[in-house]
Amino acid sequence: MTKMRDFRSKIADIAKRRGIYWGAYEIYGGIAGLYDYGPAGAALKKNLIDYWIEEFVTKDGLMLIDTPALGPENVYRASGHMEKFTDYMVSCRACGHAFRLDELISEYVEVPEELSAKKLNKLVRKYAIRCPDCGGELGDVEEFHLMFSTHIGLNKSGFLRPETAQGIFVNYSALYRINREKLPFGVAQIGRAYRNEISPRQGVLRQREFNMAEIELFFDPESKVVEEMIDETPIPLLLRDGKELRISARDAYHTGIMNGYIAYYMVKILKFFQKLGIDITRLRFRQHQRGELAHYSSDTWDAEVLISRGWTEITGISYRSSYDLERHMLYSGCDMYAFRRFEVEQKVTVTRLMPKMEILGPMFKGYAAKIANEMEKMEIDEYKGGPLKIEVDGKTYDIPEDAFELQYEEKIITGERFVPHVVEPSFGIDRIIYAMLENVYYERQDSGYKVLKLSPRIAPLKAGVFPLMNKDGMGIKAREILKYLRENALNAYYDDSGSIGRRYARADEIGVPFCITVDYQTIKDSTVTIRARDSTEQRRVKVTNIVQILKALENGTMQFTRIDENVQ
Amino acid sequence: MTKMRDFRSKIADIAKRRGIYWGAYEIYGGIAGLYDYGPAGAALKKNLIDYWIEEFVTKDGLMLIDTPALGPENVYRASGHMEKFTDYMVSCRACGHAFRLDELISEYVEVPEELSAKKLNKLVRKYAIRCPDCGGELGDVEEFHLMFSTHIGLNKSGFLRPETAQGIFVNYSALYRINREKLPFGVAQIGRAYRNEISPRQGVLRQREFNMAEIELFFDPESKVVEEMIDETPIPLLLRDGKELRISARDAYHTGIMNGYIAYYMVKILKFFQKLGIDITRLRFRQHQRGELAHYSSDTWDAEVLISRGWTEITGISYRSSYDLERHMLYSGCDMYAFRRFEVEQKVTVTRLMPKMEILGPMFKGYAAKIANEMEKMEIDEYKGGPLKIEVDGKTYDIPEDAFELQYEEKIITGERFVPHVVEPSFGIDRIIYAMLENVYYERQDSGYKVLKLSPRIAPLKAGVFPLMNKDGMGIKAREILKYLRENALNAYYDDSGSIGRRYARADEIGVPFCITVDYQTIKDSTVTIRARDSTEQRRVKVTNIVQILKALENGTMQFTRIDENVQ
Repeated sequence: MTKMRDFRSKIADIAKRRGIYWGAYEIYGGIAGLYDYGPAGAALKKNLIDYWIEEFVTKDGLMLIDTPALGPENVYRASGHMEKFTDYMVSCRACGHAFRLDELISEYVEVPEELSAKKLNKLVRKYAIRCPDCGGELGDVEEFHLMFSTHIGLNKSGFLRPETAQGIFVNYSALYRINREKLPFGVAQIGRAYRNEISPRQGVLRQREFNMAEIELFFDPESKVVEEMIDETPIPLLLRDGKELRISARDAYHTGIMNGYIAYYMVKILKFFQKLGIDITRLRFRQHQRGELAHYSSDTWDAEVLISRGWTEITGISYRSSYDLERHMLYSGCDMYAFRRFEVEQKVTVTRLMPKMEILGPMFKGYAAKIANEMEKMEIDEYKGGPLKIEVDGKTYDIPEDAFELQYEEKIITGERFVPHVVEPSFGIDRIIYAMLENVYYERQDSGYKVLKLSPRIAPLKAGVFPLMNKDGMGIKAREILKYLRENALNAYYDDSGSIGRRYARADEIGVPFCITVDYQTIKDSTVTIRARDSTEQRRVKVTNIVQILKALENGTMQFTRIDENVQ
Repeated sequence: MTKMRDFRSKIADIAKRRGIYWGAYEIYGGIAGLYDYGPAGAALKKNLIDYWIEEFVTKDGLMLIDTPALGPENVYRASGHMEKFTDYMVSCRACGHAFRLDELISEYVEVPEELSAKKLNKLVRKYAIRCPDCGGELGDVEEFHLMFSTHIGLNKSGFLRPETAQGIFVNYSALYRINREKLPFGVAQIGRAYRNEISPRQGVLRQREFNMAEIELFFDPESKVVEEMIDETPIPLLLRDGKELRISARDAYHTGIMNGYIAYYMVKILKFFQKLGIDITRLRFRQHQRGELAHYSSDTWDAEVLISRGWTEITGISYRSSYDLERHMLYSGCDMYAFRRFEVEQKVTVTRLMPKMEILGPMFKGYAAKIANEMEKMEIDEYKGGPLKIEVDGKTYDIPEDAFELQYEEKIITGERFVPHVVEPSFGIDRIIYAMLENVYYERQDSGYKVLKLSPRIAPLKAGVFPLMNKDGMGIKAREILKYLRENALNAYYDDSGSIGRRYARADEIGVPFCITVDYQTIKDSTVTIRARDSTEQRRVKVTNIVQILKALENGTMQFTRIDENVQ
């Protein structure tokens, strides 16, 4: 059996050799934190995203939108990223290499919850920390901004988005209108995001340009989650206080451990990862420590899986409360309130002022009219007697009690305005792909051959087509079948090189779920064999049925072992 | 009937109101050249791209890859973009607005083929051109770089890709290897690209961040295109010399008007656009003028459609020859040659030199060994007698005829090395979407209601589900059907607001191809009506069959009028 720590190099080897991914710009020496998806990887990523859309967007009736990665500075001032999205870094005075302070000091001392350049500088000196690459002396600790900056047009300051979420928040009002001003509603976005990591050293797990799928679920914080949304599925939790807990989603919600939408998404995420072939006995939802929370979050749970690099976050669920909408209202001046209708209308009594001009006139001369006007606009909850202060054009006037009369008005209030809250499940597509690859990799016990047990739905190539030999018409027939599959939108390939065994092994290594072999019998009766990757079982079927069979196997509507009973 | 020039405002209105697209960052005043796809637009774009992949990638067995938008400077030095990817611009001294020079002067004088800041400055003064926005005086003409620049890590110069193509070229060697070193092969990439337009004023047609789908087809320029690839489909051409021509693809190739792969792609593009609902009688392939060609291209044909803004490029096919690979070989030092095997092996006689040390030694002393070494490495095609010149360490030595003997060697040459050529079809996804919207928009003759006659395959929403009224169980039944459709990956929505007629009209406007109505009969016998958008015809079918029917209608494997005969 493959040892846990061997997985990294084995996956890296297959990834590069078989075109899943590799370091970008290798012919120019490469750039840390940038990766290319090769043909197998790009197809796999597309299949994963399509599946995600089906499960998280289409099934739940969410809105999917698509906004630019480039944005102006004021958006990121509002979001808080301009101010808060930084890491502390230090450069070596000798070799010039740069390091993230938290990673550097964590080997010497527990990273303090509250960080500052001063505090970190002290720690570097106290523990006499030197450059891990050359042993040189380290410079001063600096704050480093993680957004990539650029200019839009001649000189407008712009940034590459560090998350796709802001593209949703800035469009909140338009989306609320499209949803006919009803809550709750969810909006999803899938796309690239950018973080200028100081010195990314964790392969595809920490990229400077990466793929995200995010959902912002907007809801009224005072309304209850629909009870049926949350079921009894057990979810494995690691609470902030260090306690491990396995509890049903319903109980996690009802006991107040988490928001109902968070519980809902935990179940959905668990089932999604399971379908991807991830071992969910090695999955947990870890609650962030207070000091660890992002600036916008009041509660965050990371879906972590145990892989060769230890527990690794592949998805996060954040309770962003009304933080983002409040900030965008403040910075843009646009109204993003929703309206909460009371179950029962409320009657309230409002006190109004009726100014007496005969007193105000002589007292305030030319200002009297303006003061009276201001008084008429006021609504007073409770009047306790005595003079009132009225502000007009920035100046305050004392109005004596005899300069007005009181009038009482009944008002019916049907509801109140509020800013919606947000729960955000945020999926790291590249990390999910990596975790999935480690989970589906195995070696056959007999031969030691490598297999990626990818779900047929996710596998980049759906079928290989192999002529037993490239002669007696078998090669031609196999090419015809290849064309037939491709014309039916099945990503298939042809292989006539080496023994059938070698071709199966090559197919297994890149996770091809089904291989079709054209043999002498094919020429006679137009049947082929289909071989399943995982069981290596074979079935003989009619060529005219293979599209239907492959699509049913891919969608999971038919089991391989039931082919005989269904179609042949 | 809608007049051509009205289309722009009508499409813009539907696009914004119904969530296809709108200007990005509107709450912050917007940024020219940046757009958001709303829920309808994002779904439409995804469907278009999926269809494109099926037609251009899967059917043809191309490789699809996915590489970063961020790249280091040396990549764009190699590609020529650092040097050549600029526009001339001028700013107004009064209001500060910036303008593209070619656009500005084209209203006064024909834009010269060869541009320079000096020449353009002269023209601005000659025609006394002033600011079109405020009438102010214009400053000096400057060259403006169109790539967005940033820094990767602390200080590495980086750029946002102006085309997705370079991500393919820098990976050429890896992809050639994955394709088992066989030519031709095609590689596709779909993704965002970036151009910092000086002052984009053409709506979604000229964006600073836009969506492309590109194919780089690598081939041996000496090999012939497979004859069956090119058929008799007539293609409308506008040649460089101004001549309009309608010619079969086969003739266009055989008469040498264009490269065979260009002819192949023209037919494919024509058929693809036709399936999108674009009127191909208003489509032409326009050949670029020599001065108009991009720096990498030796021949370019733009697929242009006639829309409200005039003839508009929505796709380009460029013959990039070996330009990009040659440049990347030069700048990276990596080998990107392919090997062309001769049909018949060639025998050649090579003349070699056998140095005589007894003569060279006394003559060149300490340099003799090096000179002899150099002589032994040489292969001489033909020796005509007399002294030879030998270069060693940058110095040239004259070697007399008696200092060597000749030796003849027979060599078998099986082939030769060459750099593959490239044909590149490059699709502007946003432009195709816009052109498609104008083409599928119409108003019903009777009611004047607006309709988007989108192909069911491309339509963002596949079905609306309407209860006749939201009572007597019809609302509940309709919601059940909605859930059933969504669980079967059909993007459907529910609408119970207003009359059925109003709901059909709302559906038509956003191009929903099929509407399902739940009425009193549904409650009795579990049947619903399906209404087709284009004909407004209706059919009654069993609820249990609607998924199968909708999918068949979407894929085009069933006609609406044949529902009765097939399933009910």
